[in-house]
Amino acid sequence: MVNSAAQVEERRRQFLEQQQKLKNRMSKVKHKIAVISGKGGVGKSTVTVNLAVAFATHGHANYVGILDADIHGPSVPKILGLTGQRLQAGPDGVFPVSGPLGIKVVSMDFLLPDADAPVIWRGPLKMTAIRQFLSDIVWGDLDVLLIDLPPGTGDEPLSVAQLLPEMDGVVIVTIPSELSQIVVKKAVMFARTLGMPIIGVVENMSGFVCPHCGTKTDIFQSGGGHRIAEELNIPFLGSIPIDQKISEDSDKGVSFIIEHSDSPSSKAFMEIVDKVEGFLKSKEKSMQ
Amino acid sequence: MVNSAAQVEERRRQFLEQQQKLKNRMSKVKHKIAVISGKGGVGKSTVTVNLAVAFATHGHANYVGILDADIHGPSVPKILGLTGQRLQAGPDGVFPVSGPLGIKVVSMDFLLPDADAPVIWRGPLKMTAIRQFLSDIVWGDLDVLLIDLPPGTGDEPLSVAQLLPEMDGVVIVTIPSELSQIVVKKAVMFARTLGMPIIGVVENMSGFVCPHCGTKTDIFQSGGGHRIAEELNIPFLGSIPIDQKISEDSDKGVSFIIEHSDSPSSKAFMEIVDKVEGFLKSKEKSMQ
Repeated sequence: MVNSAAQVEERRRQFLEQQQKLKNRMSKVKHKIAVISGKGGVGKSTVTVNLAVAFATHGHANYVGILDADIHGPSVPKILGLTGQRLQAGPDGVFPVSGPLGIKVVSMDFLLPDADAPVIWRGPLKMTAIRQFLSDIVWGDLDVLLIDLPPGTGDEPLSVAQLLPEMDGVVIVTIPSELSQIVVKKAVMFARTLGMPIIGVVENMSGFVCPHCGTKTDIFQSGGGHRIAEELNIPFLGSIPIDQKISEDSDKGVSFIIEHSDSPSSKAFMEIVDKVEGFLKSKEKSMQ
Repeated sequence: MVNSAAQVEERRRQFLEQQQKLKNRMSKVKHKIAVISGKGGVGKSTVTVNLAVAFATHGHANYVGILDADIHGPSVPKILGLTGQRLQAGPDGVFPVSGPLGIKVVSMDFLLPDADAPVIWRGPLKMTAIRQFLSDIVWGDLDVLLIDLPPGTGDEPLSVAQLLPEMDGVVIVTIPSELSQIVVKKAVMFARTLGMPIIGVVENMSGFVCPHCGTKTDIFQSGGGHRIAEELNIPFLGSIPIDQKISEDSDKGVSFIIEHSDSPSSKAFMEIVDKVEGFLKSKEKSMQ
């Protein structure tokens, strides 16, 4: 492939222009938090969405955004009841979909012809999509942008880390099992290697209390999240017990922490949110 | 980048040589089955390993292989109790690690300096790794090679589909929730787009029976696997109830279907294996 000098120059100009656009858009977003996990299926998207809802109810309604960076398996629209919505383009760019409490959401799901269509893309295309989500979307002024990253330490997390070096930090979601801990250690090392501050570890699916007899069974073992936080010297944010209503609410597209605010899982959740807010506040103070 | 003609020719020769090696190695493997899922954390690796163990106990000991194609979150070694093992190189190539019942295993985990090291690779490197796993490993004669693919429809599944066009078929693992079904549909469309036959759907984590009082709770909803199989017109292979011993055994590195062969989950598992074996036998017959 031999390009003419003019073509190379034009490409370079386009690239720099997009970099600048990304910088401008993101300068209006006060805090950026990535939610990551080692293994999939640990409830990362559920944690992201409920974190966003909690922020919105804590005085940030209309100023919270979610970027669903899981290109192959976007779950955020379904959990927020936004399936079938579409991104709308205007003169300034493309607008996010507005969800409950004015949460602004961008997801690959809003761009697909139908919900079943698989996105059979290799890495470089995914990097391009994520870059556009950050640079071409009219996010506006936000207090917090939560980025739901797919599991693993591949193209998507790497792209986000490189595109947003000013990331406030990452929340790591895991389940208690040892198997999950091995993979979560990789996620921690990944974040450290890329210089992203770690806000802490959330242990999800932590024990199940039978609604009939009240007996607790540790379906995915117990205590793994706490142990890993101690071992790796990172903050432990809390454990969320299994509650079948979490899956029900996700399927219905309603917020679990609002619908079932009295359940032990919701309370555990709110304590975690308080700690994340504490982290952001202490960061704001240290920067003054 | 301008390469000299000689360099280009040399690259081309190397590539064709590796293609030929891959073909030779894989011609000794009777059946190749990929295990895929839409979402992560649905128990895909657990299903793969127990499928391999079941094949081995059904008269194929020493002739079953597992390729753990999850580069970022390899779980197979842990579940089979092989953590810390290493691939050994010999004059003919690199040998797989030999697990219980002579199951031959290859995983990224056997190549890492330690279990915590993240593999921060983009797509093209992953394709290269998977190609080498298929071409440079001395798999020998195998009756079945099971390929545990990471969730999603990105680089790894695409690479495997392109490198092994003779794939017998794919087993799709899901959990009952609607959220999971949306992503599983993408996996089915992915397999169809790439022309891979679908052996069927396994519904994992299907209801939990309290060991204390016997009450069943559908933690991740119910019936989703069956519904999706009907809707998409693909075989339903069976449902595996949640059993906390599955996670315990995975963490201990012992086979659940051997250690707890009397449990309802093990029995459900064996029925699924019978159907997969039936699929392979009818395929053998049709080719005679």
